[in-house]
Amino acid sequence: MAKPTPLSGFPEWLPDGRIVEQHVLDTLRHTFELHGFAGIETRAVEPLDQLLRKGETSKEVYVLSRLQEEDGAARSGSEKQLGLHFDLTVPFARYVLENAGRIAFPFRRYQIQKVWRGERPQDGRFREFVQADIDIVGAGELPYHFEVEAPLVMAEALGALGEIGLPPVRILVNNRRVAEGFYRGVGLEDVEGVLRQIDKLDKIGPEKVSELLVTECGATDDQAKACLALASISGSDVAVIDEVRALAESYGAVTELLETGLAELGALIAAAAQRAPGVVVADLKIARGLDYYTGSVYETVLVGHEQLGSVCSGGRYDTLASDGKNTYPGVGLSIGVSRLVSRLLSADLVEATRSVPSAVLVAVASEEERATSDAVAAALRARDIPVEVAPSAAKFGKQIKYADRRGIPFVWFPGSTGEDGAVGADQVKDIRSGDQVDADAASWMPSDEDRWPRVVPRG
Amino acid sequence: MAKPTPLSGFPEWLPDGRIVEQHVLDTLRHTFELHGFAGIETRAVEPLDQLLRKGETSKEVYVLSRLQEEDGAARSGSEKQLGLHFDLTVPFARYVLENAGRIAFPFRRYQIQKVWRGERPQDGRFREFVQADIDIVGAGELPYHFEVEAPLVMAEALGALGEIGLPPVRILVNNRRVAEGFYRGVGLEDVEGVLRQIDKLDKIGPEKVSELLVTECGATDDQAKACLALASISGSDVAVIDEVRALAESYGAVTELLETGLAELGALIAAAAQRAPGVVVADLKIARGLDYYTGSVYETVLVGHEQLGSVCSGGRYDTLASDGKNTYPGVGLSIGVSRLVSRLLSADLVEATRSVPSAVLVAVASEEERATSDAVAAALRARDIPVEVAPSAAKFGKQIKYADRRGIPFVWFPGSTGEDGAVGADQVKDIRSGDQVDADAASWMPSDEDRWPRVVPRG
Repeated sequence: MAKPTPLSGFPEWLPDGRIVEQHVLDTLRHTFELHGFAGIETRAVEPLDQLLRKGETSKEVYVLSRLQEEDGAARSGSEKQLGLHFDLTVPFARYVLENAGRIAFPFRRYQIQKVWRGERPQDGRFREFVQADIDIVGAGELPYHFEVEAPLVMAEALGALGEIGLPPVRILVNNRRVAEGFYRGVGLEDVEGVLRQIDKLDKIGPEKVSELLVTECGATDDQAKACLALASISGSDVAVIDEVRALAESYGAVTELLETGLAELGALIAAAAQRAPGVVVADLKIARGLDYYTGSVYETVLVGHEQLGSVCSGGRYDTLASDGKNTYPGVGLSIGVSRLVSRLLSADLVEATRSVPSAVLVAVASEEERATSDAVAAALRARDIPVEVAPSAAKFGKQIKYADRRGIPFVWFPGSTGEDGAVGADQVKDIRSGDQVDADAASWMPSDEDRWPRVVPRG
Repeated sequence: MAKPTPLSGFPEWLPDGRIVEQHVLDTLRHTFELHGFAGIETRAVEPLDQLLRKGETSKEVYVLSRLQEEDGAARSGSEKQLGLHFDLTVPFARYVLENAGRIAFPFRRYQIQKVWRGERPQDGRFREFVQADIDIVGAGELPYHFEVEAPLVMAEALGALGEIGLPPVRILVNNRRVAEGFYRGVGLEDVEGVLRQIDKLDKIGPEKVSELLVTECGATDDQAKACLALASISGSDVAVIDEVRALAESYGAVTELLETGLAELGALIAAAAQRAPGVVVADLKIARGLDYYTGSVYETVLVGHEQLGSVCSGGRYDTLASDGKNTYPGVGLSIGVSRLVSRLLSADLVEATRSVPSAVLVAVASEEERATSDAVAAALRARDIPVEVAPSAAKFGKQIKYADRRGIPFVWFPGSTGEDGAVGADQVKDIRSGDQVDADAASWMPSDEDRWPRVVPRG
């Protein structure tokens, strides 16, 4: 078999990279659980008709077939065609409906899983990547304060990664009610169309968006100008609310919907200023054009890495799911974990202190004495110290090299039996300093820094 | 949208079931890391030609296509057809070859991921399930002692789950060299064919296997009898080795290969008797017919749940992977996590102490005072206590019911402001006992038992 080559769009990490990813996942999970979110996993596949309910994403779906099928056997009528999920929202909505009778609402859940998109990999987009989602879903109703809470949980989760070297994040928030209220106030009815054009601002610039608003959404030059003026407003304190209202007044465009949206956005900005100062910014150009949000919308950039795009997005849906009897509104955000980890690694922002869990390599004097080394290892593990035993009874220099190559800080030498039959003391060597001291496997302990591999900012 | 129904073969758990699964995964991971195994993840897909290298499994593979493709666009020649991996061994072998220059050998890795098999779900078989694998792979060579170590790591990992109510396990071991040496010794050359028939013993019984040995493998009645006699031997101490040798002698079937195999099997049984007493049993009928093992083979049953089949299987490959220049021998085992968790849940062996992470629900006196409750929650979380805030300022009775329904043990009442403006002390209520006491969010701490949800044997 020839040496295989990587598949474009399907990232994999070497063991030290995986330590970084695992640390990120553990940190996110811990923060989510501190905030009372229950973890779930859903299957990787959904019936294709479910995945295609939103037409826009259809082109991204990987469809499954069994190899047998291709060999001629027809799929039985009862068996639905399946596709890999492309996000965690569609499966979560299905899970909520399927288990509605067994879940207590409002239901706070997190979900950390891989998703797949069949698109051609480009611009650092992946075909397989990990998302970490939180959502709060209500039965029938969901108070606005959850729209304040959800991005603040993400601010805390991403902030906790600052310790290992993740740059600070800025969460950009907007409110669909503000946008819709304003657009209708200036006389534009095709709200979705306008949002879709505004969403292109960062890509194609205001002039082209203005043209498109005129040609695609039937806006007058003045209406287009008003939309662009709204999109240009941003700020991290509540003054931004007054700025929007003043703009709307100048166009005679103050509507009830706008006022509702502004009150909501103002509450979010005010709470965020207190609970996560400097992190949350109202940015009136955030549109999330293709998604069916109805209230708050969120995007998140890494400061200094804005061109990476949003690493955590989401918003409020009035109808996350509906089964005819009940409607389930929800609010949530999704972190693009692979995008984040990929940047942490490729930009050399972080590193693992070693590539293996082992803090100690127990040396083996001879294959006949391997059981002695195994016993030392077992004694250390019993006190929760990660240990491996040397693979062969090579010369000690070679065994030390084995440890060094993996970043294992300590090599343990079981006491040897002298010619008089007396057993010498065990010794442990810190191979970084060369210090070697007597040690007892029943009591020796490495420092907290050395015990497990850690993830640290790259020096 | 109508209420969705589950997809057969794709298990999903409710939040409290997921807590059990997560605990199992965390315990396995911790044990693997204590033994110095580095975690990796591989992508979910492999090129189809890689997946089909072993013809036997071809019928199980899920093949992927992009929805676009189906709409007429032809796949470009450079783009390989992809399938979902059906185990973690094939992807690991590919990962080793792809990264051989960047990995230090022997390489100890664990890998915990979902795998997919397109077969019709039956007998509690899943189409999507989680496996937890450990393997040790060498470059060119891999000493036998790793064949002793690998099942003992699994014994420890599965033993650690005894705390939550997993029944004890019995790891059944055999050695291909013993079987092959014996079969050749009695004059049977179709070793693989014989192994394949012996593998059916538990399913169809000795009489039918004997018939098949005669009709399919060209055995005489006497040769078939010898094979069945070998398969009937089992035992957990080294006496079993003498028993096999005596049988072989009675057939004049002692070969060099048999002696090599017996020495290896004996070493494993002796080490296991010391390091995991009572867990490892030599069982000469273990064949693992369809797999390409060359030395030790392992299967594992849950005591009292033998009909569940093996929950942890594996063995030694002389050629896990090969790139023409180097050969990579390996030994490893794979735990069927979903099978294990499914049984733990369906047989009511374990339970989670609650269905949500929160130890505390902070009550909200009125929506105007929500910020006070949020501040209490933040103070508790800062000391690593999982907390959520009541979703609405309903009557306190209703808020207590919210906690009760989720198993949250404590409800926190922020001190209310009296008519004189004085702020009363915060109070915390243990809703199980009804005890309510003054408490300070800067110092109060629940018991270790209550702080996080735990998984415990079902009473």
